[in-house]
Amino acid sequence: MDFQIAIIGGGPAGYSAAEAAGKAGLSVVLFEKNVLGGVCLNEGCIPTKTLLYSAKVLDGARNASKYAVKAENISFDLAKIVSRKQKVVRKLVLGIKNKMSEAGVTVVSGEAYIQDKNTIKCGDEVYKCEKLILCTGSRTSVPPIKGLDNTDYWTHREALECKELPESLTIIGGGVIGMEFASYFCSLGVKVTVIEMTSEILGGIDKELASLLRAEYTKKGVIFMLDAKVTEICNADSGKVIVKYHTADGEGAVESEKLLLSAGRHANIEGYGLENLSLTFTEQNRIMVNTDTMMTSVDGVYACGDITGFSMLAHTAVREAEVAVNHICGKDDRMSYKAIPGVVYTNPEVASVGMTEEMVQMSPIGIFGYKVIKLPMAYTGRFVAENEGVNGVCKIITTSNDIIIGAHILGNPASELIVIAGMMIEEGKKLEDFKKYVFPHPTVSEIFREF
Amino acid sequence: MDFQIAIIGGGPAGYSAAEAAGKAGLSVVLFEKNVLGGVCLNEGCIPTKTLLYSAKVLDGARNASKYAVKAENISFDLAKIVSRKQKVVRKLVLGIKNKMSEAGVTVVSGEAYIQDKNTIKCGDEVYKCEKLILCTGSRTSVPPIKGLDNTDYWTHREALECKELPESLTIIGGGVIGMEFASYFCSLGVKVTVIEMTSEILGGIDKELASLLRAEYTKKGVIFMLDAKVTEICNADSGKVIVKYHTADGEGAVESEKLLLSAGRHANIEGYGLENLSLTFTEQNRIMVNTDTMMTSVDGVYACGDITGFSMLAHTAVREAEVAVNHICGKDDRMSYKAIPGVVYTNPEVASVGMTEEMVQMSPIGIFGYKVIKLPMAYTGRFVAENEGVNGVCKIITTSNDIIIGAHILGNPASELIVIAGMMIEEGKKLEDFKKYVFPHPTVSEIFREF
Repeated sequence: MDFQIAIIGGGPAGYSAAEAAGKAGLSVVLFEKNVLGGVCLNEGCIPTKTLLYSAKVLDGARNASKYAVKAENISFDLAKIVSRKQKVVRKLVLGIKNKMSEAGVTVVSGEAYIQDKNTIKCGDEVYKCEKLILCTGSRTSVPPIKGLDNTDYWTHREALECKELPESLTIIGGGVIGMEFASYFCSLGVKVTVIEMTSEILGGIDKELASLLRAEYTKKGVIFMLDAKVTEICNADSGKVIVKYHTADGEGAVESEKLLLSAGRHANIEGYGLENLSLTFTEQNRIMVNTDTMMTSVDGVYACGDITGFSMLAHTAVREAEVAVNHICGKDDRMSYKAIPGVVYTNPEVASVGMTEEMVQMSPIGIFGYKVIKLPMAYTGRFVAENEGVNGVCKIITTSNDIIIGAHILGNPASELIVIAGMMIEEGKKLEDFKKYVFPHPTVSEIFREF
Repeated sequence: MDFQIAIIGGGPAGYSAAEAAGKAGLSVVLFEKNVLGGVCLNEGCIPTKTLLYSAKVLDGARNASKYAVKAENISFDLAKIVSRKQKVVRKLVLGIKNKMSEAGVTVVSGEAYIQDKNTIKCGDEVYKCEKLILCTGSRTSVPPIKGLDNTDYWTHREALECKELPESLTIIGGGVIGMEFASYFCSLGVKVTVIEMTSEILGGIDKELASLLRAEYTKKGVIFMLDAKVTEICNADSGKVIVKYHTADGEGAVESEKLLLSAGRHANIEGYGLENLSLTFTEQNRIMVNTDTMMTSVDGVYACGDITGFSMLAHTAVREAEVAVNHICGKDDRMSYKAIPGVVYTNPEVASVGMTEEMVQMSPIGIFGYKVIKLPMAYTGRFVAENEGVNGVCKIITTSNDIIIGAHILGNPASELIVIAGMMIEEGKKLEDFKKYVFPHPTVSEIFREF
């Protein structure tokens, strides 16, 4: 069967590319070996946010008295929380399926194998294509820790399906995934310990905000071990798991009922005939792409999403996919990485876009001078009205001539606000330009006008 | 005492003008006869949102089971809800006071009287100024209804202070203020009837969304009488109040324990020596201003905020004040009314910016053709994850060549998202331009990328 475009992988990159190409009138085949939606929809962004929302409702009921509302005997039904998550995922997977059929995309269930850049085999069928888009995503990294093989551990996948709470949980890796699960299980009453090998949680996020969030979760009872390198994992006689680690202070160990591994993700660049494409790889063993167009070193072959290893974020994947399809269609567009937001869906949320202070200090901008301005979120009336006893902060980084290059927010609803700063960064706007827009009053978004 | 700028009225227009002028290095005197912050902070935007948030927490606890969370014996303490509101207001008034002193503004408590455009009297003191900014705001309109004088009725002011719930409440006027109080008292268990003289609630807001919100509140038990002209108000023997009205179907009457009047607001253009300025008024009896600069027909005299009668919104007032001060300072700036958001803080929220379908149909754009695109909010994964059993809609209106001219959202958190569309409208962007920005996934804000 002949198609203009073949896409391998039906996650955010793949389904977005398929939809865009289909809508542009191209004939498209999309290969997916599991379920449409990829990790993001089936075992990542969406399921975690659904679980976290139940946790937020639980927190909300517990904190209701702050707002003069009383609720007694607050409890939750974990099996139902998990089944609602499945229902939400099913509904959204169906939505993707409908989008694919509306865009006229041929979806093939099965493992694709690349014979050459114009020939994909799946099952017994051979598919010919003019252009190929690789969207095979990433998988959980399993670091070579002594004893891990003999231990029963969770990845995000098992954690999402947990229907019987452990009394205690150790999380290896204090990145976004680790912190979101720490938040979820902490709200449900599990004693959580986070072991992070670097000096702060949420690597890549503004260090000050990360530290404030850590303080918040320390208050809630989460224990953090920073600068701690896990050396060995073993089973205790009690059936519990022991995580041994090394810090500057010496050796330590944590014993808990369950262990969750969230030590990063790994691009899927092996198997499925990728070697038949003669792609060029970078020194970090990443597929080399033209970051304007998302085309690899092989003409007509594109790579989008986690497979490129740039940001491991669904929304980056979606945008890369659109850029790749626009390039194929000859439409003027180019990828830009300067305003990719990052969100941590803890409670409170942390959201970030553009450069952090740490990044600026290591870049040429640091030499020419830059400004950091910080405001408490309580500068907006709505934040005060809706966040009793909670602090938040918004930090904006500009060049010396006031061009916005980074924005970082701790406080709800940071996730929904950060794109406002992202748009300003993408457009090269100055701080004073916020004032040109009328922000509705009272909203938390008004914080941007206060700078 | 001599000042470069005198400002009458310490509401959003007044305190924003004072802060901007003070920061620009000008000597400023600000007159306020009551409390800094004006209606918005003391008896409008902020107190209503604080009360409504308690109601939202209450609704959240009641609906917790949708998210597999259980809470029993849910109740509230109205006196505490009201005292928290007062605490929030006090904190924010203090914030304004601090801003004034940081900006070096002289705040004078008392009733100002304009002797001429350069001379203001307050108490026994006379103040000279080079420029004068009028920010005297608005007050509740009391329509000439038969019997009203003999009835004990609430305005928003008494409703905010209500510490003992009536069993039933009739609200005259289904505008934003009426609907926010309907939402609040409905959540608290009061039987609410809204009488609206036009054919739909929320005049000025997209009619379809207003109708959807009305359906939502009808489900919650609120009774709406549309196209109903109130003819008389009288007291029943029971001590209740009877509101008689006329509709196309004939006469009707509602009996309730309390009556709330929210039939619009009225610019404060009488008293305080305004007649000494020889201002020009429009046919609608509004102060004529140059809508680029906010200057009145009298050189050096500006008018900002509700007093101009344009939008009766705090954020419009703030922007107008900034424009006026920039004009005084000779800084390049001009007022634009094309992207003023409007928000109704019901649950779910409604937010709107730019033109409605109804406005477009009556404008020249209607003749040249326009497009209306509607999407369910459930197109975003986060809305699905966080809004169990709730529908929402986002409607965007463009010119025939896809320039965005209006956006209308029903669904939380519409209030925090609408400025994103407002920025696009202000910049004259097209629908496809949304795709140029990377919106974090999963967020409700992503709805804009789906168009």
